[in-house]
Amino acid sequence: MAVRVDVEFAAKDAIRAVKRGDLIIVVDVLRCSSSIINALANGVKAVIPTETLKEAYRLREQHPDFLLVGERKGRKLKGFDLGNSPLEFVREVVDGKTAIMTTTSGTAALVRCRRAEHVLVGAFLNAGAVAKKTAEIAQRNKADVSFVLAGEKGLLSLEDFLCAGAIASKFPTGRFSFSDEALAAVLGFERVKDALREYVSKSRHAKHLIELGFKRDVNFSCKLDHFGLVPVYRDGKVTLMR
Amino acid sequence: MAVRVDVEFAAKDAIRAVKRGDLIIVVDVLRCSSSIINALANGVKAVIPTETLKEAYRLREQHPDFLLVGERKGRKLKGFDLGNSPLEFVREVVDGKTAIMTTTSGTAALVRCRRAEHVLVGAFLNAGAVAKKTAEIAQRNKADVSFVLAGEKGLLSLEDFLCAGAIASKFPTGRFSFSDEALAAVLGFERVKDALREYVSKSRHAKHLIELGFKRDVNFSCKLDHFGLVPVYRDGKVTLMR
Repeated sequence: MAVRVDVEFAAKDAIRAVKRGDLIIVVDVLRCSSSIINALANGVKAVIPTETLKEAYRLREQHPDFLLVGERKGRKLKGFDLGNSPLEFVREVVDGKTAIMTTTSGTAALVRCRRAEHVLVGAFLNAGAVAKKTAEIAQRNKADVSFVLAGEKGLLSLEDFLCAGAIASKFPTGRFSFSDEALAAVLGFERVKDALREYVSKSRHAKHLIELGFKRDVNFSCKLDHFGLVPVYRDGKVTLMR
Repeated sequence: MAVRVDVEFAAKDAIRAVKRGDLIIVVDVLRCSSSIINALANGVKAVIPTETLKEAYRLREQHPDFLLVGERKGRKLKGFDLGNSPLEFVREVVDGKTAIMTTTSGTAALVRCRRAEHVLVGAFLNAGAVAKKTAEIAQRNKADVSFVLAGEKGLLSLEDFLCAGAIASKFPTGRFSFSDEALAAVLGFERVKDALREYVSKSRHAKHLIELGFKRDVNFSCKLDHFGLVPVYRDGKVTLMR
């Protein structure tokens, strides 16, 4: 049997993928996934995603040594150490630390997947690596695969859709069977792969971030296969997959 | 101001496009839109879409001279004159007639758009023509544009998504501003435009129709710009736009 590949467009639909028992790849290119990946690349031990601000502040009270990071409406919050710019996660600041992270949709998508057995974090930055690990795990466990995109307000976000396509386009052909949504994503990625930054910059969310002054984040997040690492979310924490 | 172009993936979301006051293009390539277009091309005077079978049978009782056409689960129904194959609508059978039509999702999508001022029917068969008319009407009326796709069970259908892309790709550049969904559709279409039949045949719905023996319908429905006509839905009827 081929591995079925499906896509849920919005964090609120994560539960459908969990109920199917799928291996889940959470994708929030701008910027939660990209920040988590760059954080781990720069020595962060673990990222603890929370859906609510309240939960994030409560955890910080319990663990004053943890970093508190994230955003609402794109901006860093009161009492936070860092915002949600991947580029803020530099080694001098984050090496060896645990970070509590709360963002508008990405961390909510992760938390909603907490009952799934396998949850990976994907972005353009690690597309090839996450595709490879996904193929291995899915075939070993006879699990199907779902992308959970962190669409805002339940809408499709172009950058996450293209990223799901980037990852799915690297699954070994023949052994994976794509839903209409997954095939649409692959086709979109194939159309733009040589001009990723140009097309991602046309997305609703990229335009908003560029207005806020985060153009460097958008550009960095478009670096395809910049890292070979795969973050895995288990027991409430995102860590590097060994 | 640029004309905003948006996409609703499922018939159940048609109401959002209606509430925005948009010009709506209803797309159900397989097969409702394609059947309506071929019906009008072969002399049908009007198509009356109904959401329910009950309503269709009731109308037929009131108008015994009307044709009763459509499907459930892809197949023609008891007491129906025709199913939902575009190719059944031959001139000898349909010329000069009015047809009551009920299908699984296409006619439901239309009926849900009944309170919108401008509702057009689009498919690959008339993509260029419907794009041209849409651009004229939208600019004259300062209306924005929404595609309403007839996704089954609220899921995206690849063939309708690609068709929205086919139509949107023909809007005059510069004067139209695409949502993430609309841009994703355009990118998908641009990727497959030279192999439309091949990719449409990979869609969930096409595979199902091919299993039922309707491969010719799938192939016919992929003929890009085969007709120059535009069906318009107004006062409960679909007729040729003059």
